[in-house]
This record gives sequence, C-alpha cells and structure tokens, in this order.
Amino acid sequence: MAKLKQKDSAYLCRDKFATRAETLEKLINLWHFEKKIESIELKLSSGRICSEDIFSKNTLPVCRAAGADGVAVRYVDFENGIPDFSNWREGQDYVAADMGDDFDDKFDTVLWIEDFQFSNQGKIIAITPSDEVFKGHLVKQKGAMLQKDELVLKKGDIINPFRLGLLASAGIKNINVYKKPVIAYIPSGNELVMAGSEVKRGENIESNSLMVEYMLQQWGAETEIFPIVKDEKSELEKVIDKALKIADIILLNGGSSMGTEDYSSSLLAEKSEYLQHGVRSIPGIPVAVAVINGKPVVNLPGPPFAAWCTLDWCVKGLISNYYGREFMPRPKINARLKNSIQKPLVHEMYVRLKLEKIGEEYNALPISDKMRYSEIAISWNALFIAPIGKEKWEIDEIIEVELLDV
Amino acid sequence: MAKLKQKDSAYLCRDKFATRAETLEKLINLWHFEKKIESIELKLSSGRICSEDIFSKNTLPVCRAAGADGVAVRYVDFENGIPDFSNWREGQDYVAADMGDDFDDKFDTVLWIEDFQFSNQGKIIAITPSDEVFKGHLVKQKGAMLQKDELVLKKGDIINPFRLGLLASAGIKNINVYKKPVIAYIPSGNELVMAGSEVKRGENIESNSLMVEYMLQQWGAETEIFPIVKDEKSELEKVIDKALKIADIILLNGGSSMGTEDYSSSLLAEKSEYLQHGVRSIPGIPVAVAVINGKPVVNLPGPPFAAWCTLDWCVKGLISNYYGREFMPRPKINARLKNSIQKPLVHEMYVRLKLEKIGEEYNALPISDKMRYSEIAISWNALFIAPIGKEKWEIDEIIEVELLDV
Repeated sequence: MAKLKQKDSAYLCRDKFATRAETLEKLINLWHFEKKIESIELKLSSGRICSEDIFSKNTLPVCRAAGADGVAVRYVDFENGIPDFSNWREGQDYVAADMGDDFDDKFDTVLWIEDFQFSNQGKIIAITPSDEVFKGHLVKQKGAMLQKDELVLKKGDIINPFRLGLLASAGIKNINVYKKPVIAYIPSGNELVMAGSEVKRGENIESNSLMVEYMLQQWGAETEIFPIVKDEKSELEKVIDKALKIADIILLNGGSSMGTEDYSSSLLAEKSEYLQHGVRSIPGIPVAVAVINGKPVVNLPGPPFAAWCTLDWCVKGLISNYYGREFMPRPKINARLKNSIQKPLVHEMYVRLKLEKIGEEYNALPISDKMRYSEIAISWNALFIAPIGKEKWEIDEIIEVELLDV
Repeated sequence: MAKLKQKDSAYLCRDKFATRAETLEKLINLWHFEKKIESIELKLSSGRICSEDIFSKNTLPVCRAAGADGVAVRYVDFENGIPDFSNWREGQDYVAADMGDDFDDKFDTVLWIEDFQFSNQGKIIAITPSDEVFKGHLVKQKGAMLQKDELVLKKGDIINPFRLGLLASAGIKNINVYKKPVIAYIPSGNELVMAGSEVKRGENIESNSLMVEYMLQQWGAETEIFPIVKDEKSELEKVIDKALKIADIILLNGGSSMGTEDYSSSLLAEKSEYLQHGVRSIPGIPVAVAVINGKPVVNLPGPPFAAWCTLDWCVKGLISNYYGREFMPRPKINARLKNSIQKPLVHEMYVRLKLEKIGEEYNALPISDKMRYSEIAISWNALFIAPIGKEKWEIDEIIEVELLDV
C-alpha cells in the first residue's frame, strides 16, 4: 500500500505541462545512444535499415544479352536488307534469344520475335523488321542491369521488397544493418498477475505487456519484457538498473497514477538527469518521462488506451529518432462527425472513432469511454487527434481521421 | 531453347484483355478454398484473424474495486457530512485504494485522493469532498471491465495490439485463428541460379523469390519457395502437381515472356479449368492466370517491377478474399507531377514516382524505366496508378499518389 500524502499542487496545473512535441524533443536532446551494427543474412533483412552504403558484387548481365524476346542474328546478313534465309538453320544462322538470354558470339543483333513468321516445322518463312535494324539492335550490354561496385543502396535506406530483390541480384549474401533498439518494459503493481494466470479477488491481469510488445516490434524494436515487479521502491530500482544495462529505452507501467506514483516518482527524481511529469495530451496526461544515464525512461499510464497513445507519440517517436527516419503516416480520410467532441483548450486529445462507410461517404462516431472495453475494442477502427487550441467539434463537422488496421 | 513458332495474334489484341478487377473477380469466382483453422498461443497471435467469436473467461474486476485513485471509506461515516476523523487509523477507518484496487469489505465508498490532506506523518488533516458523496461513489462494480462469457472479439476480426491486451485480460491463452493461406512460388528458367551463387556468363540470379516471399508474408500468407525449375514442360508439370498438393495459390515466375511462354502456356492450357493470357495493366501485360483443381495459378511476369505489380493487385487481392477482409489502403497525398505521363488509353499503368517535399507541397517525378535498376530502387518512394480511359497527364498536374514504406 502506498503511503498517503499530499499531492504536489503543481501536478494539477496542467496548462503548464509541455506538449507532446516538446516532451519528445526534450527526451531526444538528452538521449545519448549508440547505433550498433550487425551483419545479418540477406534473407532475414526485410524491413531493416542499412548501416552503410551497399555496392554490387556482380555485373549483370555477365555478358551482353538479348534485351527483348527475340531472335539473334548476324548484323552483316541484314546490312543490305532482308537476306535470303531459305537455307538458314537455327543455331547456325539465327538462334532464339529471350529477354536476358546470352547467345553465341557469332550473333551480334537481336530482332523482335514478332518480326518473324515460322512454319509449323519451325522454319522461317518471313522476316519483316518492325524497326530499323542496326548492329547491336535489342542487345543489352554487359552490366546494363548492374555493374560491380555500383552503389545499390544508401546508408539509412530501408530494405523493402523491391530492394531486397536488387540486393540479391547484386550478390549480397550478408548485409550490415542497424541493430534494433532494445526496449525494456517493466510492469509493476502488487495486484498484477501474469496473463494466463488464474485471477483472484484483488488481482488484475497484466495485459499491457502483450500490446506493448506487439506495437514495439511492429516499429522495429527488440523487446525485453520483465516479470511483474511488486510496488516497492528498492525492487523497482533493482529492475530499472538491470534494464539500463541492456536496453536503450526503458518503459515502466504501473506507478504513474495519482495514488501510487510516490515511490516511482521519487525513484525517478533521485536517479534521473531529467524528469517531467505530465503532458498536454489526453489520455495519458499523468505520464512521467525521465532520462537516466542518457536513456529515456517513460512511465506509461496504466489504462490500455492511455498506454497505447503514449507508445504512439512518445516511444514511436523515439524509435523513429533512433533510426533517423520517419514512419509511414497512417492513411487519412475525411469523415462526418456523428457526435460532438469537447476537450480542454490547452490539451490535445486522441479520440477513438467507429468509422462507417455510408455510400461514398464516411461517418465517424466518437467512442465513449463509458462503453465497455470489449465494445471499444471491436468498434474502434479510426482515430482523430484533436489539436490544442480548439475546444469543440460539432456534429456533422468534417474531420480528417486516421485509419487503423482493423 | 524454346521452339520458335508463330505468336498467336489474339495475344496482341490488347484492348480485348480483361482489366485487373475483372481478372481478379474471375479467379475468385473459380477458386474453391477451404479456410482451415488452427489454435495458437495468444502471444503468437498478433495480426491473425479470429476464426470464431471469442468470449471472456474472466470477470474483471473479480470483485468491486476502486474506480479512481482514492481513499476507500465507509459511506455511513459520511451520511451526515464530514465525520470526525481525528482518531482515524489507516486500515481501520480508511484505506488507500488506487484505480482498480480491491479493498476490505468494510469499506463501500471511494473518495478522490485529491479530496484529502495528509500530514507528513500520513495522518488525515482535512477532507473536502469535491463532489457529492453517495454509497458506492467511485466504486467500480464487479465485472465492470469484463464479464465471463462476454463477447470480446468477433469471427473475422484481426488481432491488433489493443485487442491483444483485451484478450489477455479475458483470460484467453490459446485462440482459434484462420490458418494462413499457403502460396507456392516456382521460379523457372535455364539461365537462373540461386541468389548467393556465383553467376557465370549466360546465367542470371533468381532474385524475385526474396521479394515475393517478403511481400506475401507481409500480407499474412505462408510461403513455399520451390527450387529453380529448368525450362522443361515435364519438370514444370511435376513441380506444379507437387505445389497443388500443398498450396492454396501457385505462383510461377519465368515462362510468361513472349519467347518461352509456349511450354508453360501449353501446360497451363492442358491442366487448367480456366486460362487467361494478358491483362490491361502496365507493366505485367503478359501475365497468365489460370485455375487448376480450383486453385489460382498466376504466372508472374519476370521483370521485378512487373512481378511487384502483379503481386500487388492480383495476389494481394486473392489473400484479401481468402481472409474476407480488406487490407489497409496505402496512405495517399496530392502531389504536383514534374514530368508528363503517357500511356495507352485502354491500359491502366503503375507509375513509379520519386516524391519530394518542397515546403508544404510535394513534387512527384515519374521514374523512367531507362534509369538504372539501382537508381530506381533508391529513388522509388511513391506510386501513381494511372487509370484506364485517360492517355496523358501533363507536367504540373496535381495527382493523388500512394506512399510506399521507404
């Protein structure tokens, strides 16, 4: 049980809080991280970020090749117009050469396959070139696709599917990429039991870690989920110290509420170079962010949606900064608001929406916090982030909403 | 070497080809698949699709609990106003009760923690309730969060991060989800060698399989990548038969070009209930789609971008149909075209773009096919799908482009 004492009144002066952009900027400025590099097999590199410029090991085609599906011939035979091909033999006077095919060095020019007519026995019965024949026509030069030592991907580039194919062509077997940032997640609370356990009176299930792990992995982080820590300062300190040794970012989840924050708050105050309580963003106002040994420590709010939001703006922002690249934005569409939204002027607010397509238009119904957890989870398919500086959105107002993957 | 013979002239009547929507619809109508179900551990279920309605196994809170961070008291003490608390002892007359905490049955009402003032020794020195105190004030009833047997997720719902947390709270340990569709990929070509091999004159690297595997896995499919098959009808037939036994969808990659299509084409013609050559979409016009034993067989075009496009509209569409749900659209923005685009009226065309932010606006430069493979891979970050029915887009025209994850 937490010791009851007076709340700090500054905690309640919410318009003094930093915005989420300011909070994130502060953390990033104080964060000292080293981007480590690892060499991994190309086939395991999907979605990873190159830690250096990558150069081709191959030249492709290795030798000049057909640049289209065609027939390889000798240019000299066509120098003075269509030759007499009545005695031509395949392999001797011409040869099939599909796009990318090598062919015998005695041929130097490729004509379109469509320019030939063949008998049922495969003998040429007509050649009618559809364009001017010149020496080297439709011949792809050696290295036309790739040259050895050619730059194929830049430091900081993500390995997407198309690039993965290119890297394979370039003969890359192992590739240097940035190691994923390691994010430790430390759930705490005397009442918590692990997911999958029997839950008794006075207990609650630690369900956030599954959500946290999923979100962080989606964003390219490696996760270290710690066992549940009891609400005791010395225990928590031990675990934080352990996490600081292995992780780049530390997430706490538990003691950020008004009642129990004391011990985690005083612990963060003692240990951190920087500590900030609260952010002007709903839900998740009571979030505490700190920097300890140059590493961001974020005390996520306990309620799942508040934790979701803090992960979304804060932890995703940190990961983006680690990799030095922006994440894809969520797809946005315009929708008609089907209930009003009201919030304090000084706060931003994440609003969960149930989006429905009506003909060619979309209706967006804000999901009430009073709805049951299960109903929220089933119907929540879009998001509206209501900005600071406006208090009310009216019914039928058109808003720009972000789609979620449901 | 393919036997040279006359091309079927119908092949060239491209305005007779089906559109991609028509092609996909045809395949879907002829596709007979069984959606199999598997039971997996909850923690491995990220992004999977529920194959049945899911009901809670837990009631949470197990017992009534604090609905906010507060202090649990006896309502009877407050019935006639603020009681004399001078001799109150914690645990006896009141107890700290944070959000979600259970508390002793002798208490029945919770007051906000902010309504109390405590001495440094933790003794109450003032109580000033900020709202009317009633019996059960700030008490969350048993089951307020979850009731046993309550519906928590519907058949067909995707397990996203927020829902994963809910399922953990609901006591779900194993969950029934749809098995991933199995997609076989069969690369073929005498000239192909496996990625990672030394490439000699006349050879080329089979680099598409890495791209294909990445894209299919991203879309929730299980992949079976076959070894490279030589250009021989009987060999290919054997492998297709093997693939038909284990896969829901079969992808060929190789013999779809004008020159070598004969044997794969005649093989598909012999084996398939349905065969369609060509689609009104650039690149990838020569795609062949077939249905064999009720399973879609797609002969992907060989060039990487043409294969990418066919995967995007055709195979992704099949996976979407399998799961019975739509994929998230790519985020779209408006951009100013920095070079004109021209294409045949009857065809759709995928145009690769290099998108650049200039101030608050975006410029979109179409990427020429004449650019080197590596330059394309590095600069391609957006897509414009130019629809059928329009031939030309002028410089400075505003177009809606789709963002890619680069």
